[in-house]
Parts: sequence; C-alpha cells; structure tokens
Amino acid sequence: MKLTIIGVGLIGGSIALKLREKHFADYVYGVDQNEQHLVEAKELGIIDESLSLEKAIQNSDLVILAIPVDSARKLLPAILDLVTDKQTVMDVGSTKAGIVKGVENHKNRSRFVAFHPMWGTENSGPKSAVSDSFSGRAGVICDQEDSAPDALKMARQVAEYLEMNLLYMESESHDIHTAYISHISHITSYALANTVLEKEREEDTIFQLASSGFSSTVRLAKSHPEMWVPIFRQNKENVLDVLNEHITQLRKFKSALEKENYDYLEELIRNANKIRGILR
Amino acid sequence: MKLTIIGVGLIGGSIALKLREKHFADYVYGVDQNEQHLVEAKELGIIDESLSLEKAIQNSDLVILAIPVDSARKLLPAILDLVTDKQTVMDVGSTKAGIVKGVENHKNRSRFVAFHPMWGTENSGPKSAVSDSFSGRAGVICDQEDSAPDALKMARQVAEYLEMNLLYMESESHDIHTAYISHISHITSYALANTVLEKEREEDTIFQLASSGFSSTVRLAKSHPEMWVPIFRQNKENVLDVLNEHITQLRKFKSALEKENYDYLEELIRNANKIRGILR
Repeated sequence: MKLTIIGVGLIGGSIALKLREKHFADYVYGVDQNEQHLVEAKELGIIDESLSLEKAIQNSDLVILAIPVDSARKLLPAILDLVTDKQTVMDVGSTKAGIVKGVENHKNRSRFVAFHPMWGTENSGPKSAVSDSFSGRAGVICDQEDSAPDALKMARQVAEYLEMNLLYMESESHDIHTAYISHISHITSYALANTVLEKEREEDTIFQLASSGFSSTVRLAKSHPEMWVPIFRQNKENVLDVLNEHITQLRKFKSALEKENYDYLEELIRNANKIRGILR
Repeated sequence: MKLTIIGVGLIGGSIALKLREKHFADYVYGVDQNEQHLVEAKELGIIDESLSLEKAIQNSDLVILAIPVDSARKLLPAILDLVTDKQTVMDVGSTKAGIVKGVENHKNRSRFVAFHPMWGTENSGPKSAVSDSFSGRAGVICDQEDSAPDALKMARQVAEYLEMNLLYMESESHDIHTAYISHISHITSYALANTVLEKEREEDTIFQLASSGFSSTVRLAKSHPEMWVPIFRQNKENVLDVLNEHITQLRKFKSALEKENYDYLEELIRNANKIRGILR
C-alpha cells in the first residue's frame, strides 16, 4: 500500500512510522510546505520520498491529511478533485463538522473518511513523532454513512494498525464532546500559565517549586497556536459554551471561599471527585 | 534515630519508608486516628509499632506531623508542650503562615521546623505511600531563623535522605508561591471536572474519548477534600487573589473567541507558551 502523508509533523509522522513498522504502508510520500520538516522526516525514516501534492496523490492508495484544521478544511476539496474511486483520503483533525460540511456536495465525498485519532502532545514537528503513540487511544470515525464501504474499510485498517479503539460518531456530536474532553483543557491550561506568568514574577521560584501537579496541569499550555487557534476557530460555539460553564464553576469556588462556606467548598470538591469513577 | 510519624498516609508513609530504607530511622512509631491505616502501615513496613501520641513522642528523636493542615495547626502546640530540647518536630503541610503563627510564642518554638516537601498525588492512605516519591522535588524550609540549629540540621538531613532540593523561604512568601504553583491548579482541575460532569451527561463518552491531555488536566480533581479544604481555608486570601486573576485570564480567551479576534487569541496562546522556558 502506497501512502501519502500531507503534513509530516507530530501526528502525520507518528502515523507513518507505525504503518511502515507494521508493513501496512510499503512506500510513503511526504508533502509539506516546510522543507526542513521533509528533510528531517526522510532522515527519521518517516517518509521515503518528498513529492508535490499532485504527484504524491496520483501515486498513492491512501492520503492522510495531517495539517492544522483550517488548512485541512481548505485543502480537502482540491485533494478530492484529484482522487479516483480506488483511493481513500483521511484527515486526523480535532474538529469535524466544518471539514465535513466543506465537502458535503463534492462528487468524491465518499472517498473521504473523517477520522480523529485522539492523541497529541504539546510538541510538534517530525522529530516529536513516535510510532506507538496511538496504541490504546480512542480513534473516532465521523459520519461513516457518507464514506464508501471500501474507504471505510481502509480507515478501519489504519485504526487497527495504530492499535486504536475505534468509535463512530456524528461529526456534530464529536465536536461537542471534544470541546469538553480536549479543547477546554487547553484553554484552562493556557489561562493558568498566563495567570502564573502575570502574577508570579519570580520565574526562578516557579521553576524550583513547580510540583508534578502544576506541571501536569500546565503541560498543555506549551501547545502551539498554529495548531490550536484553528481548532478554537472551527469549534468556536461549542468551546464558548463549555468555557462559560467552566467560568461559572470557578465562580462557585470563588464564592465558597469569599463567604468562607467550607461545607459548600467540600461539596464542590466531592462532586469533582466523581471524575474518579469515570477516568482511569 | 527513633521517628514518630503522626498521620501514616500518603506523605507520612512515603517519608517513613524512605528514612527506614536509608537507615536514618531505625525504629518508627505510628500515630493515627484511623486504626485501619495503622494496621496497614504496619503490614506495609511503614511503621514498627503504633503507639499513643504521648508515648510515641516521648520515645522519639524526631516527630513528623503529616496530617491535614487544619489539624496540624491545632495539634502542634500540644506536641511542642511534650518535647525536650533534644527533640525535633517537623510538619509537611502545604500552607505555612498559619501553623507558624500558631506557635510563634511557644516556649519550644525553636524545636519546630516548618517543612514542605513539594510532592503529592491524588491518592491517599498508607497503601499509596512510595519511598522514592520525593527524589528530585523541592523541599522548602520556612522561617529557618526561628528553629534551633540542631533542629534545622535534623530537618536538612531528612530532606537529604529524601533526596530533595532544599529551599529556604519566609512562610508568608511560601504561601503566596504555593497558591500559584499548586493550589490554583487544584481549583482549576476541580472546576474542570465539575464542568464536564455538569454538561457532558454521557459518562461513557467521557471515558472512551478522554485523551491524555484531559486526563492530566483533570487528574488533580481526584484529590480528597479532607486534605484540600483545609489548605484552601488556611490560604484563603492568596488563593482568592490567584483565582480572581485566573478568571480574568479565562475571560480574555472568552472575549477573543466571542469577538472572533484570532490575532488576540494567538497572542494569548503565545504568551502562555512562555511557560516552556520555565517548566521542564
């Protein structure tokens, strides 16, 4: 199977590494605007060859689009213009409703499978790629009824080789759920980093005192705007909904403290503890 | 050296395990209101013997107070009443100004060293204790000038055997810094858990979709109110300061999204990214 990876970064690179390792992809073309990333990807064994978008697609059975969600949304129609009914195109974006809507009337819509492998780190670029990243994580296929059976089969095989737990969802629900499960965590983490950077002027003290709790809460604040501004833009309404609720919840803690109502504070914490039953 | 651990839970238990392993403590007495924890601590090799508070103190060179900060503050004067000028008492609490203030005029104040080993997990009880927990973490001694040189020496040895990086601070500054570095992370995490639990009714979906980012941000929300309500109570003013700033920072994200001002959103994220330079 010949594979094209468009965007040889953290996600695209990690997928390519795993699919090669499993011998599912026997030749990988890389397409990227960043020449340096293409050089690195080749050195790291992520791709065999860098090629123009048109030529790479022409030579591939599967095209995986792994660029920021805005750019993916813009580029997908042009990619679908180029594919035949023997080829499959998948994306890996964190928002789904927009990209799917952008090709709903495309003649080759059925060659596209909307896919979201739920893994990421605060790092980016081919050097961050790790082949085992996706193992045991959720992989979501959206609006499966709009994809051709053979394209879906290809996507399922990819998820299987990545060792992901496959789920199926409407793209609209996907975007609501990810606003809760992923996008709000990033906003919280960014805001927390800004809070600390604003008020805690002694950087040395942050560095020396930072406990594992702080580091794990603020880790996501290292994530790049190139990836996250497009996600927030694409999922604006859902993210705002959740953000408003989050501010409401924080105000409850504020009110409990201001009124020295420690029974209420305890109640808020006990409620939050219920996440134990849901998260491993 | 004979050691008494008051509160044989996560922190007290972990300290005892390490000090025994290093042969710094050759006999450990356990004091705890929770009988079951005493039984477990003995089974786990954390303590040699459970004893009444009075007898345990009488037999010990070092007393480590590892109970929630409210209770520690209440109990410390009574402990200091019982010690001689050959004995040392340390606490391990996450807030310092209150406990120190409570004994400022005690005749045995100089036998006490205010200590904060900056490590913890969302778990509690002796079964969660791990001997290597503190290695490489910050250990803070507060108001060192109020402790006797030999008591300070004992505390330094403890920190050394725990393999901690020792820092010295005024207790008031300590409480401001920990409000930023630790306490606000917990409130954020609790509020985030409550947000998700409030709005995301499909528990199964949370469970299946939860990515590593979400899990790491929400992990602290599993922390128990028995430990954290007292910390927030003791550090109310500082925590409220930081919480207000945090809500202000979140509102900036809200405003950027509402006004679709993505340049501003990017600026906020780029600023948050500066935490990369400070946190490992």
